[in-house]
Amino acid sequence: MSVRAGILVTGTEVLTGRVSDRNGPWLAESLRQLGVDVGQIVVVGDRPQDLRAALAYLAAGHDLVITSGGLGPTADDLTAATVGDFQGRPAHLDEDLERRITVIVDRLVARFGGALDAQATAAGTRKQAMVPVGATVLEPTGTAPGLVVPAADHSDGPPVIVLPGPPRELQAMWPAAIEQAEVATIIAGAPQLRQTTLRLWGVPESELAAVLRRGGSALDGLEITTCLREGELEIVSRYRPDAEPAQQKLVTEVRGSFGEKLFSTGPTVDQIVASALNDRGWTLAVAEAALSGHTTARLAAALEGTEGRNRFLGGLVVQVPGARVPAEFTPSDDLTSPVAGQARSARAAFGADLGLGIAGPTGAEDGGAHVVIAVDSPAGLDITSFEVRGRAEFVRERASTLALHVLRRLLAQDPPG
Amino acid sequence: MSVRAGILVTGTEVLTGRVSDRNGPWLAESLRQLGVDVGQIVVVGDRPQDLRAALAYLAAGHDLVITSGGLGPTADDLTAATVGDFQGRPAHLDEDLERRITVIVDRLVARFGGALDAQATAAGTRKQAMVPVGATVLEPTGTAPGLVVPAADHSDGPPVIVLPGPPRELQAMWPAAIEQAEVATIIAGAPQLRQTTLRLWGVPESELAAVLRRGGSALDGLEITTCLREGELEIVSRYRPDAEPAQQKLVTEVRGSFGEKLFSTGPTVDQIVASALNDRGWTLAVAEAALSGHTTARLAAALEGTEGRNRFLGGLVVQVPGARVPAEFTPSDDLTSPVAGQARSARAAFGADLGLGIAGPTGAEDGGAHVVIAVDSPAGLDITSFEVRGRAEFVRERASTLALHVLRRLLAQDPPG
Repeated sequence: MSVRAGILVTGTEVLTGRVSDRNGPWLAESLRQLGVDVGQIVVVGDRPQDLRAALAYLAAGHDLVITSGGLGPTADDLTAATVGDFQGRPAHLDEDLERRITVIVDRLVARFGGALDAQATAAGTRKQAMVPVGATVLEPTGTAPGLVVPAADHSDGPPVIVLPGPPRELQAMWPAAIEQAEVATIIAGAPQLRQTTLRLWGVPESELAAVLRRGGSALDGLEITTCLREGELEIVSRYRPDAEPAQQKLVTEVRGSFGEKLFSTGPTVDQIVASALNDRGWTLAVAEAALSGHTTARLAAALEGTEGRNRFLGGLVVQVPGARVPAEFTPSDDLTSPVAGQARSARAAFGADLGLGIAGPTGAEDGGAHVVIAVDSPAGLDITSFEVRGRAEFVRERASTLALHVLRRLLAQDPPG
Repeated sequence: MSVRAGILVTGTEVLTGRVSDRNGPWLAESLRQLGVDVGQIVVVGDRPQDLRAALAYLAAGHDLVITSGGLGPTADDLTAATVGDFQGRPAHLDEDLERRITVIVDRLVARFGGALDAQATAAGTRKQAMVPVGATVLEPTGTAPGLVVPAADHSDGPPVIVLPGPPRELQAMWPAAIEQAEVATIIAGAPQLRQTTLRLWGVPESELAAVLRRGGSALDGLEITTCLREGELEIVSRYRPDAEPAQQKLVTEVRGSFGEKLFSTGPTVDQIVASALNDRGWTLAVAEAALSGHTTARLAAALEGTEGRNRFLGGLVVQVPGARVPAEFTPSDDLTSPVAGQARSARAAFGADLGLGIAGPTGAEDGGAHVVIAVDSPAGLDITSFEVRGRAEFVRERASTLALHVLRRLLAQDPPG
């Protein structure tokens, strides 16, 4: 009954980890919204035999196969030809397409100051205009066209959607891909699939396992996965609409066991803080020490792109302990903690409703590794200290999550006066 | 002759894109350093039949299979059992291991304030201590043990290394995994494999394709992949040591065609800027407007963890145009551009050798979308403007790359006086 898609991500740069794959996850989420279940993602390098083996593997267990990457003008880009060959469709030159790509490439080359070798550039364009016979061309959103390549008549394999590697190009091409007739027919057969995320803060995974075991058969119909991430525990369920009662049972069980530690049945902590600031009409400013600007950048990004955009006013990042700082951030003697001073200075210097001060481990501590967070708000000054050990990258990521939970809890209280 | 490994990443959270996979790329790079070629990475959800199909697929074409994830205490964690079954090795309870995990879990649960359900917690621990007969246990680096599971005697399939999902745990367990006798024997057979990256700035991919075509058979023996990323073009070659002359030929060709646009034969632009600041003993401060702190965080991270750690002093992030800012950053009238004022204020307020000002699109521009970058240095004030269009996330990533290239070019010049 369910419709399953397999995703094939190509490119040695992805396989070797030089570029992290953004297409697989984006496609998986887009397909889920259409009710299509993603069974597997395979990442292969730019080697025809691996590409072909992966196509055969995915075609055998899925109703639809989607590839990303390998459509450029260089010789290592061989997805279109390999897919055509696999589907039993030899390539031919689409001269009209060649002309359309030429227009795009000429414009691009002109911007860089003219071609070094016009003939070789033309050869690259011609390569990109080679189309498997019987395939549908998806117009380029960069320079490379995409394709929908059905299996040749004598085969009953799934169609393959061939998309470019750059995420912007792939995403821009996606609407045309799912409108193509053969693809649309397959997607139309997909049932509705709901997905809900419960988020817990301060619960170990072993405790959650116990609760899920207790749920037993009342949770049948839910495909539950749990995931521990930056101190948060996520429980994701995917289910058909008729399993909604089981999902409600899950929420009841989890809330019954963990109470306020279940902080969300949907939105992320970033989104919760953004809406809470928005609801109150409050603004935020940050002063961050020894955490490489990570908290500042995360809060700025969290409050961007939502209604709350202007709720983040700004931040001061001081990386080196004892370094000179702008005058308004000079530590004052009347406060018990330098981080409290940061919070107060941030609030005053930017004229914000809330000032958040955060300081990472200085390397000078013996034994401990503390992240200290202070918030100066209309309700007063609040300071919390956390122990966080690990490499610098881990510490700064965790620190930003802690800052968001400190803000979340503060904003969950009634506003003063 | 080459030794090939296949990587199996498990977890619905990775498959659906809620968590981006950091293990596949990390393992691929670690294996490459050992001379082991990664053929394919497969991502599957927490479904036994998919996991088993992927194991069979990878075992058929690789000398070694490595899994990550699915070792937790919850019922959806089923990698150990599925791998054992696939390798023909039924599970048994390792009581000694169970005791060791119990110690770890008790400590963890105590930190969260005691177990809700000791019996269910114990059931989770027992599950984690089930080991396929004849497998080698890799000691837990979190709560979950890893495994090396050889194929049962009657099979000639590759051994499977089973590692936990959290990147910190997986990385900590890796040294033990490659020291295990069967794994070490396979790795010992791997030939040396070199990898070199050429980095170009300001070159379209079509031009590069032309140059590579001209190289022809002189480049035989190199596995070349090209990749366009944030305006940079990377050419990565992987080759056996005896193909070193071909690699030198490639460098000569690319340099001959693109000159100074070939800005690196190895280090990233982040690393180049870090060493250049270090060589001069210069420090940097930043003032950033309307780019969500991304440039500040990237520069801070780029200069962290290298010798140049203290070269980044700090940054001011102002998100909202026209908002109140600390007094020292108030725009002055004697400068032609607000961004020049940012650069100068950053340099002065933090007492740095270099001040970088950067401003993103304000949304108020009609037609254009400009990122303006100014650097105030001992050599004077330098301002550059770039057109960058796209979504906020894209603009802020590209802006930080532009800032690094502006710094790189400035630092490539002779220091003044």
